[in-house]
Amino acid sequence: MKLYGYFRSSAAYRVRIALNLKGLTVQHAPVHLLNDGGEQMRPDFLARNLQGIVPALELDDGSVITQSLAIIEYLDAMKPEPRLVPAGPVLAAKVRAVALAIACEIHPLNNLRVLNYLKGPLHHSQGDVDRWCRHWLLAGGLEPIEWMLPGDRLCFGDAPTLADCCLVPQLFNARRYKVAYDHLPKIVRAERSCALLPAFEDAHPSRQPDAQ
Amino acid sequence: MKLYGYFRSSAAYRVRIALNLKGLTVQHAPVHLLNDGGEQMRPDFLARNLQGIVPALELDDGSVITQSLAIIEYLDAMKPEPRLVPAGPVLAAKVRAVALAIACEIHPLNNLRVLNYLKGPLHHSQGDVDRWCRHWLLAGGLEPIEWMLPGDRLCFGDAPTLADCCLVPQLFNARRYKVAYDHLPKIVRAERSCALLPAFEDAHPSRQPDAQ
Repeated sequence: MKLYGYFRSSAAYRVRIALNLKGLTVQHAPVHLLNDGGEQMRPDFLARNLQGIVPALELDDGSVITQSLAIIEYLDAMKPEPRLVPAGPVLAAKVRAVALAIACEIHPLNNLRVLNYLKGPLHHSQGDVDRWCRHWLLAGGLEPIEWMLPGDRLCFGDAPTLADCCLVPQLFNARRYKVAYDHLPKIVRAERSCALLPAFEDAHPSRQPDAQ
Repeated sequence: MKLYGYFRSSAAYRVRIALNLKGLTVQHAPVHLLNDGGEQMRPDFLARNLQGIVPALELDDGSVITQSLAIIEYLDAMKPEPRLVPAGPVLAAKVRAVALAIACEIHPLNNLRVLNYLKGPLHHSQGDVDRWCRHWLLAGGLEPIEWMLPGDRLCFGDAPTLADCCLVPQLFNARRYKVAYDHLPKIVRAERSCALLPAFEDAHPSRQPDAQ
């Protein structure tokens, strides 16, 4: 399998964590989102994913799976141990809800192409963009997520789930935007616990070959 | 079970379709997103879902599941027939990817609270907001989704899936924003096929008791 990603893309970072947790090795194909107006807009990448976004997972038969959460669910079906979506339906729903609260309520509003639209066509200052990011990260996102977590060592229990795969990259972004979240103790605890696990450490953007 | 929703929320509309497809009956608890600054901000609703968004599904034991895709996956686990996420892992990934392309790339950018932020704190005109909606609906969303579909009668094959549950409400929104998509034949065909099914018809916003 080949993973098209970008070291700083938090959606690609989610998939790297999941691959590491499952002990799966893939070929990494970096797609630089800033070079030459964005390598994700090159015809050879668009032929694989017309969405023009990373990550995309190319299977050995050449078919391509897009959307980080769909990729992680696929990995969970193909190699169920360790399970990233728990077997019990209610707990599975709570894990997926946290992952989706990140993937649907925070990340889409703070990703590069949206910030570029705010700065480009809508002529906003960096200050406006920073306030936008902060708003969706905290009130729109991390604060309700703190409430959704039971307060375990990781997001749910002692074993990493899809929720941790999404939370840790989003917190990496929060740091980049200098948004403090130390008033959210359950989130802080889960992040610290994840940081001790090699699967999370090895997936960190700074550890990727395309990191600059 | 009790579904907290709003007739015009496309995320609640997804869940109504899924419930109808499975023949499940729930109590509907309308949460009016515009009355009194938004009933979703009332303490009794926030106690159930601090995210302050619909839908939320309250189970008979009082626990609450949020995020429309997590709710539909839960329903699919509890009552697997008819399956909304196919059993085969690759097809399941393709169905989920279309659902997520809608739920992560289109809907979060066009929902009410984001448009209110553009008009309020960022002082944009209705024209700016209309262009924003159009941009994320088409180039950012429906056009890549057209490419992701195989071109069957419905999104994938002849039976409704999670992808159809997400596509139809998003197209309802596109019409509200007067964004044409008749240049996307696979999407138009899937929408027309879904419209013939009572599960979709009965879930339509205009058919809900809280419709105004």
